[in-house]
Amino acid sequence: MTRVMNFSAGPAALPLQALERARDELLDFDGSGMSVMEQSHRGKAYEAVHNEAKALLAELTGLSSDYEILFLQGGASMQFAQLPMNMLNAGQSADYVVNGVWGEKAIGEAKVVASMYGAKTRVAGTTAEGEGKAVTYRRVPLEGELSLDEAAAYVHVTSNETIHGVQFAVAPDAPFPSFGGAPLVCDMSSDFLWRKVDLSGFAFVYAGAQKNIGPSGLCVCIARKDFIAKGRKDIPKIFRYDVAAENNSLFNTPPTFSIYLMRNVLLWAKEQGGLDTLEKSNRAKANTLYGVIDELASFYSCPVDRASRSVMNVVFRMPTEALEDAFVAEAKKAGMSGLKGHRSVGGIRVSTYNAVSLASVETLAGFMREFAKRRA
Amino acid sequence: MTRVMNFSAGPAALPLQALERARDELLDFDGSGMSVMEQSHRGKAYEAVHNEAKALLAELTGLSSDYEILFLQGGASMQFAQLPMNMLNAGQSADYVVNGVWGEKAIGEAKVVASMYGAKTRVAGTTAEGEGKAVTYRRVPLEGELSLDEAAAYVHVTSNETIHGVQFAVAPDAPFPSFGGAPLVCDMSSDFLWRKVDLSGFAFVYAGAQKNIGPSGLCVCIARKDFIAKGRKDIPKIFRYDVAAENNSLFNTPPTFSIYLMRNVLLWAKEQGGLDTLEKSNRAKANTLYGVIDELASFYSCPVDRASRSVMNVVFRMPTEALEDAFVAEAKKAGMSGLKGHRSVGGIRVSTYNAVSLASVETLAGFMREFAKRRA
Repeated sequence: MTRVMNFSAGPAALPLQALERARDELLDFDGSGMSVMEQSHRGKAYEAVHNEAKALLAELTGLSSDYEILFLQGGASMQFAQLPMNMLNAGQSADYVVNGVWGEKAIGEAKVVASMYGAKTRVAGTTAEGEGKAVTYRRVPLEGELSLDEAAAYVHVTSNETIHGVQFAVAPDAPFPSFGGAPLVCDMSSDFLWRKVDLSGFAFVYAGAQKNIGPSGLCVCIARKDFIAKGRKDIPKIFRYDVAAENNSLFNTPPTFSIYLMRNVLLWAKEQGGLDTLEKSNRAKANTLYGVIDELASFYSCPVDRASRSVMNVVFRMPTEALEDAFVAEAKKAGMSGLKGHRSVGGIRVSTYNAVSLASVETLAGFMREFAKRRA
Repeated sequence: MTRVMNFSAGPAALPLQALERARDELLDFDGSGMSVMEQSHRGKAYEAVHNEAKALLAELTGLSSDYEILFLQGGASMQFAQLPMNMLNAGQSADYVVNGVWGEKAIGEAKVVASMYGAKTRVAGTTAEGEGKAVTYRRVPLEGELSLDEAAAYVHVTSNETIHGVQFAVAPDAPFPSFGGAPLVCDMSSDFLWRKVDLSGFAFVYAGAQKNIGPSGLCVCIARKDFIAKGRKDIPKIFRYDVAAENNSLFNTPPTFSIYLMRNVLLWAKEQGGLDTLEKSNRAKANTLYGVIDELASFYSCPVDRASRSVMNVVFRMPTEALEDAFVAEAKKAGMSGLKGHRSVGGIRVSTYNAVSLASVETLAGFMREFAKRRA
C-alpha cells in the first residue's frame, strides 16, 4: 500500500496513526466484540470515548471551565443557521465580518433567520473586491475598516477562508484580534487547533471536523456557558445549544464513529507535543511553500496580501490555466493529490492541515521548483 | 477476535462483511492511496460511492423516479423539526398519529415550529395509556380510532416504535395502511428496509441509519419530488429539502464515511437476496422469540398487543426486575449484548435488525428457555 500526499481542502488528510488504530479495532473495539460504530451511544464503552474526546480538546486548547464543548452535526453550514436561531432576538442585530465566501454564506443564512425573527444582520466590514461573479478576497480587514455595533447580539468572524487562502492573525505570536464589545463568534472550521489560540476571548467557536481534526459529519463547538444560557427557548430542542450542553451532546444519537476518529486524531496531536509543536510544523510547511512562490515570483503568484496569507491553505496562480492543469496532472502522477483550486476561483490550492507532513510539503516544493524550471 | 451477539437498539449490529470491507480498505480506498474519509466529497472516488448508495437504495426498494433520495445529518430527531420547517405554512395544520415516544417527540418539535409559523399540529390518533410518567403504548391505532384532517399539510406516522416494540403492518403481506388523503410522512428509522414496502403511498419517508442500514450520523430521506417542491423557500438553505435535492445531497459536506459504510451494508443486503430474503429472516427471528415468550407465558410476558408486535424490537418483562437484571448480566457473560430495555420503560428489549443473524436469535432463545427453567 502506498499512501498518497493528500493536500485536499477537506475532507482532508488524517494522521496515519489515527486511521491505523481505527482499522485495527474496527471489528472489535477495546475487547468489546463489536465495532465502536455498533456500540450504544448510551453505553459505557462509547461514553468513555465521547468524554475522552472532550477532555483532550479541553487539554489541547487550555479551555477554562466557563466553556462547554458540543459535538453537533451538519458541519459549519448548519451553524450558519443554528447560531442566529439560538442567539438572535426580535429587534436585535448581529454583525458579520466578511473576508471570503464562507463569511458570505454565514451572513446569507443569518439574514433568512433574522427576517423570520424580526431581527437584522449587518456587514461590519468586508474586503470583497470586484462585482458579481468576479468578487474575490485577498485579505482580512484592518481594524480601522470595521464599523462595529457594540450592541450587536454577536459579531461573527471567519478566522480562515479556505477558498481564498485568507487568514486572521497569522504572524508569529499574533493574538487573535478583538472585535469590540459584542460577544465574538468565530467559524474556525479550517484553522481550528492549528496553533494555540486564547479561546477566552470568544463567546462561541465552531469548526467542521473534516479539516484539521477528523472526518466529516461532526461539528465541534466551544460555547461559553453564559452565552448559550441566554439562547432562545422557543426553537425546536434539536437546535438548542443549552439542550445539547445539558445532555452532554447526547440529546440525540451523535455521530459516534466520527467522534471516535477525532478522539484518535486528538491523541495523535497530543503525542506530537500538542499545539505548540503543531504550530511549528504548520509554520514550516507554509513558509516552505510561500518561500518557493516568492522565489519564483515570475512564474508563481499568490493573490493574497502578505499579512493575510493563510498558514492552512496556500493558494497561487501560474501564467496560464493550461499550465495549472498540467501542474495538477503531473503532481498527481508523482503521488500528490488534491491540488486543484476551488472551482469558484481556479488556480492551485495546497491545504497543509495538521496531518500533512513537512516531508510531503518539501516534496511538493521540490516539484514546484522543477516544474517552473521546465515550463517557465 | 470473538464477535458478540449484539441486540442493541441502535447504534446496532452491522453486517460483518460491510465492516470487513471497511477495515481492509480503511487506509487505501479503491487503490487511491487514501482512506474514503480523506477523499474530497466533490471528487470522483467519493462521488461514485455516493451515487452507488443511492442506486442501491432505489433498487432494493423498487423506488420510482418520482422520488429523490436525500442523505441528511442529525438523525430522525433533526427531521422532527426540519419536516414542519419545510412543509408547514401559516394557517395550515399537520396531523400526527402517535403510538410511542418517538411520535410524541416528533409532534413536540413540530408544535414549536408551528407556533413560530402561525400553523397548528393535531393528534389524529394516539394509543397512549396511563398518565404522566406512566404513559405507555401497547399497540398501533385501529383505522376507526383515527380522526384525520383531509386538508392537513401532511399526516405523520411512526412505523415502528423502538422503545415500546410496537409496529404497523407486521402481518405477512399486510400493506402499509393508508391515512386519508393528506400527504403521508413516515419516520421509518427502526424498520426501514426490513421488508419491501410499497413506497409509492408515501410523500416523505425518513430513517436514521443507525438501526437497519448503517452507522449513526446519517439520515436517509425518500422524498416525493412534487411534495418537497412545494416546500418553503423562506427558511435557511441548509434545511431546504429542495436545495438538498438539487445538489444531490452535496450542498454541504455530507457524512462521507457513514454513507460509504451504508453502501457496504446495502451491497450486503443485495447479496443476501434483497428485501424479500431479509424479510424471511426477520420474520423467522421474531417468530422464534415471540414463540418462546408465548410458550413460557408464566415467566415471560410481552406487553404489546399481538397484532402490533414489532418484528424489529421484541420487548418483554419477567416476574421481577431482579430477574431481568440477572437475565441481562448472564446473557452478557454468554456473549449476548444490548438486551436491557430502554431506561424509560425497563424490561428486556431484543433488537433484531437486518444484521442480526437467525443463529444469534436461536442462541438467545435457547438461553431464554434455560434461564426460565432455572429461575422460574
